[in-house]
Amino acid sequence: MISIRALSAATTLSFGLAIAGMATPAAADTLVDNVQGITIGKDGEVERFTGLWIDDDGRIRQVLRRNDDRPAKPDFALDGKGKYLVPGMIDSHLHVMDLGIAAMTLDLSGSTSLDDALSMISAYAAQNPSLPWIIGRGWNQEVWGLGRFPTAADLDAVVADRPVFLERADNHAHWANSNAIERAGITAKTADPDGGRIIRVAGSRKPAGVFVDNASNLIRAVVPELRAADRDVAFAKAQERLLSMGVTAVADMGTDIEDWQTFRRAGDLGRLKIRIMSYAKGVDQMALIGGPGPGPWLYDDRLRLNGVKLSIDGALGSRGAWLKQPYSDDAGNTGLPMIDPTKLRNLMSRAALERFQIAVHAIGDAANADLLYAIEELAPTYTGDRRWRVEHAQILDPADLGQFGRHGIIASMQPVHQTSDRLMAEARLGTARLDAAYAWRSIAATGAKLAFGSDAPVESPEPFAGLAVAISRTDSDGEPFGGWYPSQTVSREAALAAFTSDGAYAGFADGRFGRLVRGERADFLLLDRDPLLANARDLRETKLFETWVNGERLYEAP
Amino acid sequence: MISIRALSAATTLSFGLAIAGMATPAAADTLVDNVQGITIGKDGEVERFTGLWIDDDGRIRQVLRRNDDRPAKPDFALDGKGKYLVPGMIDSHLHVMDLGIAAMTLDLSGSTSLDDALSMISAYAAQNPSLPWIIGRGWNQEVWGLGRFPTAADLDAVVADRPVFLERADNHAHWANSNAIERAGITAKTADPDGGRIIRVAGSRKPAGVFVDNASNLIRAVVPELRAADRDVAFAKAQERLLSMGVTAVADMGTDIEDWQTFRRAGDLGRLKIRIMSYAKGVDQMALIGGPGPGPWLYDDRLRLNGVKLSIDGALGSRGAWLKQPYSDDAGNTGLPMIDPTKLRNLMSRAALERFQIAVHAIGDAANADLLYAIEELAPTYTGDRRWRVEHAQILDPADLGQFGRHGIIASMQPVHQTSDRLMAEARLGTARLDAAYAWRSIAATGAKLAFGSDAPVESPEPFAGLAVAISRTDSDGEPFGGWYPSQTVSREAALAAFTSDGAYAGFADGRFGRLVRGERADFLLLDRDPLLANARDLRETKLFETWVNGERLYEAP
Repeated sequence: MISIRALSAATTLSFGLAIAGMATPAAADTLVDNVQGITIGKDGEVERFTGLWIDDDGRIRQVLRRNDDRPAKPDFALDGKGKYLVPGMIDSHLHVMDLGIAAMTLDLSGSTSLDDALSMISAYAAQNPSLPWIIGRGWNQEVWGLGRFPTAADLDAVVADRPVFLERADNHAHWANSNAIERAGITAKTADPDGGRIIRVAGSRKPAGVFVDNASNLIRAVVPELRAADRDVAFAKAQERLLSMGVTAVADMGTDIEDWQTFRRAGDLGRLKIRIMSYAKGVDQMALIGGPGPGPWLYDDRLRLNGVKLSIDGALGSRGAWLKQPYSDDAGNTGLPMIDPTKLRNLMSRAALERFQIAVHAIGDAANADLLYAIEELAPTYTGDRRWRVEHAQILDPADLGQFGRHGIIASMQPVHQTSDRLMAEARLGTARLDAAYAWRSIAATGAKLAFGSDAPVESPEPFAGLAVAISRTDSDGEPFGGWYPSQTVSREAALAAFTSDGAYAGFADGRFGRLVRGERADFLLLDRDPLLANARDLRETKLFETWVNGERLYEAP
Repeated sequence: MISIRALSAATTLSFGLAIAGMATPAAADTLVDNVQGITIGKDGEVERFTGLWIDDDGRIRQVLRRNDDRPAKPDFALDGKGKYLVPGMIDSHLHVMDLGIAAMTLDLSGSTSLDDALSMISAYAAQNPSLPWIIGRGWNQEVWGLGRFPTAADLDAVVADRPVFLERADNHAHWANSNAIERAGITAKTADPDGGRIIRVAGSRKPAGVFVDNASNLIRAVVPELRAADRDVAFAKAQERLLSMGVTAVADMGTDIEDWQTFRRAGDLGRLKIRIMSYAKGVDQMALIGGPGPGPWLYDDRLRLNGVKLSIDGALGSRGAWLKQPYSDDAGNTGLPMIDPTKLRNLMSRAALERFQIAVHAIGDAANADLLYAIEELAPTYTGDRRWRVEHAQILDPADLGQFGRHGIIASMQPVHQTSDRLMAEARLGTARLDAAYAWRSIAATGAKLAFGSDAPVESPEPFAGLAVAISRTDSDGEPFGGWYPSQTVSREAALAAFTSDGAYAGFADGRFGRLVRGERADFLLLDRDPLLANARDLRETKLFETWVNGERLYEAP
């Protein structure tokens, strides 16, 4: 036995010499061939190819052009039959667990009548027998034409064995069944809380089933917190949804320790398929998750704690964005910073000192200015490759625009917000302050890198919708004709880069994934059309055939 | 290129056939030979051997007897020169991070004079230039014969650049330097707080440097909390200390999320060398760390969240142990449960429902009885291989002893506590309640498995001291002659099993490590003597030459 073994070792060595540098002579590998391949290359230009040869570790061994030799006997070969192959999409700003949790609850926003809603609730309860509570949102009795609030009795008729708790479309009321009301201990004797109202059965004090504003808290207090097993389900749902849409990597904005543990469980058990660049929810979670600095890449480049997410202001819709001048539709109100300038700089310094990457939510022009000048102040101290990230960067004072081109700042923006926000933004800001609103092209022109995302679950994570908006500034109905402030559209190539290679760069993942070049991870999509030739409407209708991550096929269209 | 590759693959395949099942023909491997090897075998009997052949994944490929063939050309070979080789010791109850933190601070308990203490402080500061604070304990001006309290000025003469904060031996006073006093903002104007006293310079109100009782809190408030980088240092120190003593695996009793993150950082960066079987600090930390159930083994069997650590009572010394009858030296006081029986059962059920292993601290006879009968009540519901652990199991009512033999209960005990506690236990309990105190043999006789540990840093983690006590019930001075309740000694073989194979069993690690048999991890020690032949005194003086974990030499005696 020993002598055979020695022979084997010696012969293996001689093969090593004979095959002249072939690192993995017996490795499993994959050939994807006969495709119309597209990537942003290392020089930022579009590169085209016809095949990929992939190592068994999921990295691209060779990008194949038409006349290159193919491996004779790959372990697996796929004939792309001329389909288009592009890098997996990177969503640079979303909330993984929120997306999964949203997918676990019932969406009643499409219900057209009380009966329609009740049948949706009944079906959902039947499909989810192990859920202890039926939680959902989106009902609106006005849309239903009901002429009254729905009642607990309505709900009891379809779900009586478990509590049901459903948020109204406007977030200002909840509808509960009797089981939920009993669990909360709410009776005819329960008084309305401050800032809330319990709708009562006509002619009595008995709770009718709808709880307005703060009265909802009476029930919310007994809704069980999410358990680890629930989180695992939520994560799996988010991951499945992302893969089915062609998103292979994400920046998770505001990871807390529970989220992180969920990601690690998935990684430890081989269930983590997408790539997550994590930004902790504030500096305390950053230190708890990351320790003394950004973590290593884990699970074959599928998870890393890059840095911290901070927030300066709120959102435009609720007038929480911090503006230099008052809202056009709310005289005297400029919004407020949620974090004062001194504290922002202290938190940024604490993170930067330990080389964590810093990503800061800034929506209003005052918030963006504060952040841009904070970076200006800190950059001389915290030198090197920092990749300061401005998240959203929605409303800018043109006077501050030039700051984006300094210190390697990245603008992490969500194209679809522009179409969702358009009319609201006009109302909040008037027309005089929209020249640098959602201003992708102007920001890119300063030299800043763009990284595009969706802010899911606030918007759908569907990346082809994002690409379509980026190049057209029109919504799914093609409105407004010609695009909203169309000078701010970017080229198809720039939009693709912002959803692939520059998204990777924004998360310190360049060289690992985001491009289909030798040595990077084989994360790609098979499509029915060329996103660099399609118009906006066609882009939205892109058919995704397959999603691959790390050389593994993880989604195939039905 | 392609044709060469195909040839290579084909030839590799034919080798695969030729070498008839040799799984890793080109693997690096290690031979440790010419040793007097000892292990507890799979049948619980002592097995002896003369060599180990180790795979490159750190597992034992073959246990070699004198006449077995040796591998001809191992990648690494060690001639043991006749040394004794035993499994790495498993400490089944200690506190990894506390051990490391203790090792990071200055121990002045051996100082014999003020000058002696000052030179220790000066040397420690010089050896630890990156520590922002010099923290320590153990000084006693009465031992020094100083005739006064030491002063800030005394300290300033040796450390002025950083704050120094040193606890007196009795915990009731602290000595600080001027830097620490200034950071705390303590001046001549600072009043003594309730329950505390600031020692002042004679004839003035200037703080002199010693702070009594609650006055210490004025400085404690500005001592920085442990940062992640400090935790990493503490972990490294604990690991280094354990390896230098021959401990290769531990059960960490009371892991919190910060501890866990420290262990994971070490694992992610390849710095985790010892094996840690983790028991979370209560059920909330259990759920946060473990998620929906015990975790997988991570990092080549080096880390796993097994379950939860709960505590019923306190300790005997402080009369916190819960007794059936009052303390002999405190009439009317029986101690108290820290957790009432109903809540204990609820917490145990919550953990058991998700198949977490349950380890419960029980010191007094009432606490042990409550726990044993709680297990009796829960066992019919939570069936299967549970390995219920009783931690400490120090004082038993002989009437309850038989319960240990039921439901696969493990007694996790710390032999050295017996010698440390002996006189105190006699005072607290009188002589009538000592027949089943620290009753290793009686517990083992019921059929329960023993798992031995140290409770470090409460005691030193030195395992040969533990083995010596286990077989002799005498302390390092050989007292009492013949041993304390010597009928409770166990055999050398049983003691070795409790520090190796049964320690692994107690942590669901059997089959992974704890025995030197084919397929288990190669964790072992090289010693100068045979622990199955040495008497207690000789065992304590065992010379440890080398400590290996996972086939890697991690400690070599200087």
